[in-house]
Amino acid sequence: MVLGMKFDKNNFSEWFGKVLEEADVIDLRYPVKGMPIYKAWGFSILRNCFKMLEGELNASSHQEMLFPLLIPEDQFAREGEHIKGFEAEVLWATHSGLEKMDRKLAVRPTSETVMYPMFALWVRTHADLPLRVHQTCCVYRQDTKMTRPLIRGREIYWNEAHCAHATAEDAESQVKKALEIYGDFYKKLCVPFKALKRPDFDKFPGAEYSIALDVVMPDGRVLQAATAHNLGQNFSKVYGITFDDEKGAKQHAFQTTYGVSMRCLAVVVALHGDDKGLVLPPAIAPVQVIIIPILSKDEKQPVLEKCRQIKKQLIAEGVRVDIDERETRPGDKYYYWEARGVPVRIELGPRDLQNGQAVIATRLGEKKQVKQEQVVEETRKALAQTEKKLFENASEKLGQQTSKATTLEQLKQTIEEKGGFAKAGWCGSQECAETIEKQTTAEIRGKEKEEKAKCIACGKQGSTVYIAKAY
Amino acid sequence: MVLGMKFDKNNFSEWFGKVLEEADVIDLRYPVKGMPIYKAWGFSILRNCFKMLEGELNASSHQEMLFPLLIPEDQFAREGEHIKGFEAEVLWATHSGLEKMDRKLAVRPTSETVMYPMFALWVRTHADLPLRVHQTCCVYRQDTKMTRPLIRGREIYWNEAHCAHATAEDAESQVKKALEIYGDFYKKLCVPFKALKRPDFDKFPGAEYSIALDVVMPDGRVLQAATAHNLGQNFSKVYGITFDDEKGAKQHAFQTTYGVSMRCLAVVVALHGDDKGLVLPPAIAPVQVIIIPILSKDEKQPVLEKCRQIKKQLIAEGVRVDIDERETRPGDKYYYWEARGVPVRIELGPRDLQNGQAVIATRLGEKKQVKQEQVVEETRKALAQTEKKLFENASEKLGQQTSKATTLEQLKQTIEEKGGFAKAGWCGSQECAETIEKQTTAEIRGKEKEEKAKCIACGKQGSTVYIAKAY
Repeated sequence: MVLGMKFDKNNFSEWFGKVLEEADVIDLRYPVKGMPIYKAWGFSILRNCFKMLEGELNASSHQEMLFPLLIPEDQFAREGEHIKGFEAEVLWATHSGLEKMDRKLAVRPTSETVMYPMFALWVRTHADLPLRVHQTCCVYRQDTKMTRPLIRGREIYWNEAHCAHATAEDAESQVKKALEIYGDFYKKLCVPFKALKRPDFDKFPGAEYSIALDVVMPDGRVLQAATAHNLGQNFSKVYGITFDDEKGAKQHAFQTTYGVSMRCLAVVVALHGDDKGLVLPPAIAPVQVIIIPILSKDEKQPVLEKCRQIKKQLIAEGVRVDIDERETRPGDKYYYWEARGVPVRIELGPRDLQNGQAVIATRLGEKKQVKQEQVVEETRKALAQTEKKLFENASEKLGQQTSKATTLEQLKQTIEEKGGFAKAGWCGSQECAETIEKQTTAEIRGKEKEEKAKCIACGKQGSTVYIAKAY
Repeated sequence: MVLGMKFDKNNFSEWFGKVLEEADVIDLRYPVKGMPIYKAWGFSILRNCFKMLEGELNASSHQEMLFPLLIPEDQFAREGEHIKGFEAEVLWATHSGLEKMDRKLAVRPTSETVMYPMFALWVRTHADLPLRVHQTCCVYRQDTKMTRPLIRGREIYWNEAHCAHATAEDAESQVKKALEIYGDFYKKLCVPFKALKRPDFDKFPGAEYSIALDVVMPDGRVLQAATAHNLGQNFSKVYGITFDDEKGAKQHAFQTTYGVSMRCLAVVVALHGDDKGLVLPPAIAPVQVIIIPILSKDEKQPVLEKCRQIKKQLIAEGVRVDIDERETRPGDKYYYWEARGVPVRIELGPRDLQNGQAVIATRLGEKKQVKQEQVVEETRKALAQTEKKLFENASEKLGQQTSKATTLEQLKQTIEEKGGFAKAGWCGSQECAETIEKQTTAEIRGKEKEEKAKCIACGKQGSTVYIAKAY
């Protein structure tokens, strides 16, 4: 136990903070609330996540751009619902040097109001549509709730995509496409989730509807890990995004927007980590394979040479690999790389050298002696198995964390005892939603699909929804 | 002339703006001064530049991290020279939602004051040194001079590196190392420069000395394209960055910092561009090779198939390649990709298919018929030659733009007529620097090396310096 503590669901928060620190993910001591420093290891994992996502978006006809941080007040305030949803959280820049500026500038809490005036300039005819744009950046929200590392902060690292479409159908199918992309993304992170259409009172400010991916964290609470919104024509009407359709008539564009934040990193840490620290899915591990030479004085050079040769072979295969040549004990190195979550370790000592063998150990605890000529193949297998196992383990857990309830009493009990999701009927009224929340402290997260069921609060006809305590 | 204008040194500014627009590099219509939108093509070039630089820094023992945007006022104001140098340009965030905050927060104009309090926590003993950190981010400066796209803005995209060292010698050699890294970087961008030690009055606020890379732009003015600063112990004393040396004595760390901004993109556009638009060095071209199928109705499919086959071969070789399969005339496609600066074009039509040939054309105007089985090899050659030629052309220009002067009259004349650098003697006094600037409108950019010469203003013994009009 390199962390000096066992991890269970009751000490999740403490364990989480400790892992982030020990594994060099973030430093929380910066003196502005909710703004972490991403240290080298953590930033590399984060960037690997987002590189994968950016690549996927680029490959599916999104254009990667970069927009400004600051928004003139009048430009920001144009869409009524949107500004209402964000105004309490916006950070305002008011002074330039020692002087007060003529107008204040919002530090972007999200980029609709940055991008859409530009969309209005770029979109002229139906031939300009669909327009799909994305950017990776930080956004700023003066959230008044308690900040939590990587989960709720005031500087949010994210990728946001924004699109304009010619028809409502195109917008609808883009939301589906976005959820597919995010689904594939989280699959590579070995993270199972529920995609839930949020109740109307919980949708994005200015949207027609919102669908979110919810993940169950080890303490039984759910975390929103990605969102996709259908904006309809709300913003295009306000910002004047119009186009000439094929008959030459002016139309307002239909819009969609979707995003994933650094919460993906929180989810990876939380779902896969253990008593020893991080466990990283191979797709995002900065080092996928660490080679540890077991050095005796006599055979140091030949052992090192063999290790370097294996490293070269693995690099040629596109594996991210490193050798730990430091002058410390192998056991200390094991702990070090285990805490950082490296999925596969190769050990090679003088005896292995003689026998033409090496040891392959996975972060999930499997260990195997293999012939040196099979090291590359066996390493590939170990990486693939780790990915598979991580997803299976997490899926099994999610299965256990999903239950059903038919009475409020039962709902309260399952939420309290098991945590996670409870499925129950809800009529759709805000009143019943409030009753449910009051009696169970859990909230309605939304529908996975349309399925009829009687409301757990009032008994009227409604649909099955997922209910959970949330972050 | 796709731009509708010929490019010469007298219309540089107009040409520059037009190229940036036509080639989809940036959009300048965002309603906050000095904040461009990086469009897809421009952002891809920019990221290719910075990916190369980040990779180089990571490979030379720098840790890539990400630090917060905001700095509490007291933390920002601790180093006297530094704050004096920046206070007129700092953007301040003062309000959170509808309320005034207890303390104002500076939007980082540079990250010394963000990072060094953290360095103070991280550095304990000599074993923690050297500490080398870098980040790519945007910084914000309310520059009061006229903004110019990619050259002088208020949102500056850059990579900044910050180090702490155990000795003054280590700091000194890190500055040299930084200049080497930047030199290699600009070499890949085919950009020649002068590395000049700035006069004391022009050094970075809080530094012991500053060395900058200066590039001569087509209009004859020089642009600072990278800087490296030796900070000595100025900041470590203020922020308490101390370590126990090998004898157990407390010491203040020696520090260095260096950076490159989006000006590298301005330089690439300006130095290599021509009447047709951008010309991109292969190292940073989002598309290095564009394949244009010349389609007739009958043989469309076989031509396309051959093109796709060539694309596959080139991808396997690590070349960034695309096919333009749009239904427009080949000539229009040539213009389109020329304006965007793609270094190599492959043309292949029905006759080429029959003859087993293809045409390779470079952006620098060379054109060649080659056998299909040699396309990969010939493409490689064409890319390598383009890189070589771009650097040679730019170096030749820089040679022509560097002259000598021994009198103020001569200096004035050469600066006016030829632009670029003039080498002359300077005694080192601020008074003579002012005399020179007053009489010639050019400024002292600094020394390349120590070389004795009589001051062009007062005749006293001094050293050779480079003098130029600057951005």
